[in-house]
Amino acid sequence: MPVDPAADIEVTAYGWVPDMARGRVKDCRIRWALEEIGLPYRVRLVGGAGGGGGVKSPEHLADQPFGQVPVYKEGGLTLFESGAILLHIGAKDARLLPREDGARARAIGWAFAALNSIEPFAQMLFVMGWLADGKPWQDEAGDLVRPFLETRLAQLSVALGGREWLDGRFTIGDLLMVDVLRAQAPPALVAAHPNLADYVARGTARPAFRAAHAAQLADFRDVA
Amino acid sequence: MPVDPAADIEVTAYGWVPDMARGRVKDCRIRWALEEIGLPYRVRLVGGAGGGGGVKSPEHLADQPFGQVPVYKEGGLTLFESGAILLHIGAKDARLLPREDGARARAIGWAFAALNSIEPFAQMLFVMGWLADGKPWQDEAGDLVRPFLETRLAQLSVALGGREWLDGRFTIGDLLMVDVLRAQAPPALVAAHPNLADYVARGTARPAFRAAHAAQLADFRDVA
Repeated sequence: MPVDPAADIEVTAYGWVPDMARGRVKDCRIRWALEEIGLPYRVRLVGGAGGGGGVKSPEHLADQPFGQVPVYKEGGLTLFESGAILLHIGAKDARLLPREDGARARAIGWAFAALNSIEPFAQMLFVMGWLADGKPWQDEAGDLVRPFLETRLAQLSVALGGREWLDGRFTIGDLLMVDVLRAQAPPALVAAHPNLADYVARGTARPAFRAAHAAQLADFRDVA
Repeated sequence: MPVDPAADIEVTAYGWVPDMARGRVKDCRIRWALEEIGLPYRVRLVGGAGGGGGVKSPEHLADQPFGQVPVYKEGGLTLFESGAILLHIGAKDARLLPREDGARARAIGWAFAALNSIEPFAQMLFVMGWLADGKPWQDEAGDLVRPFLETRLAQLSVALGGREWLDGRFTIGDLLMVDVLRAQAPPALVAAHPNLADYVARGTARPAFRAAHAAQLADFRDVA
């Protein structure tokens, strides 16, 4: 069981988030990777009722300039940005990141594609939905923004085709892409592409994902 | 001079873009990195008047599923996503990516920060400005979206502080961050933080940036 209070690796997570964000916070990606290779980690909670310090505290901002999670600590190394943390963990184990130069570079390419070519459009749709909520132009703005994500998902569906994983075998590129699709994109837009829906189902059925997701949920404290 | 039609490395760029995008297309990042280490590359143009094929052509989509540039080819390797290409180039030369594990991981962290914590908010502001252009809710939407980028820039300004580069010495993390700030963020928002403005000025004064930028501009063909 990778969660171990005595582990060398520390992953920072939120002590509390609203219900809709539970299971979707980005430390889940890191827990997932560590579960895939059985590497133990301890959790440090920040913010909210169960946190050991505010996310805007000077200590946390020194570790994570944008006041977010996850932060990853190991020995003297402090890292932020989930993509960079996954590359660091991936370098430890070929089950996450192939050793062969070409395959490794392509896996890293898919990791960046998840974070720079898909996630921003899912996030833009979410943020605009939230900002425009209740405004007379809410529907119009949504209809203008949604096609950006729809186009990217259609292109991703073509790129995946009938394959099980994006580049032949599961890597951190798939881990990130599945996590972005399941946690950031509206399910109906993903479901419009059966191969993407199957891909997400395949990723989230992995025991390591299920353990990571359950561990994140278990760490939230309720607020009185 | 890194641009060399006989070079092993091929970088794909657009043959034409509107004036406002000239100098800002993401192949500039790749050219910049190659100029920093003097590694020759040849250019393949796609799309527009000077292109050797459309960006939506099956050949191009096989290389770049989202129909964009840059694509990077070297030997049998085909890569897309500017971040992944820069990591691949960085691995060739310590001047771009430190060899020491901790410094390398932190440089990669800043590369992801540029692409996942700053660029999406600059892009969201740009896209919303474009989608909302002429709508009665244009100003209201802009005022709602702009603070997301302003907050991130203020946080980045604190993180940079009085340092020359984000982690002590110039790396691909700085190359990407400078490129995002200079090409994607509204100049007035960057200028609100003198240390960020100086940082961008320092990055774009590098001879390698100037050569890369000039080379991108030189490759555009005018449309009759």
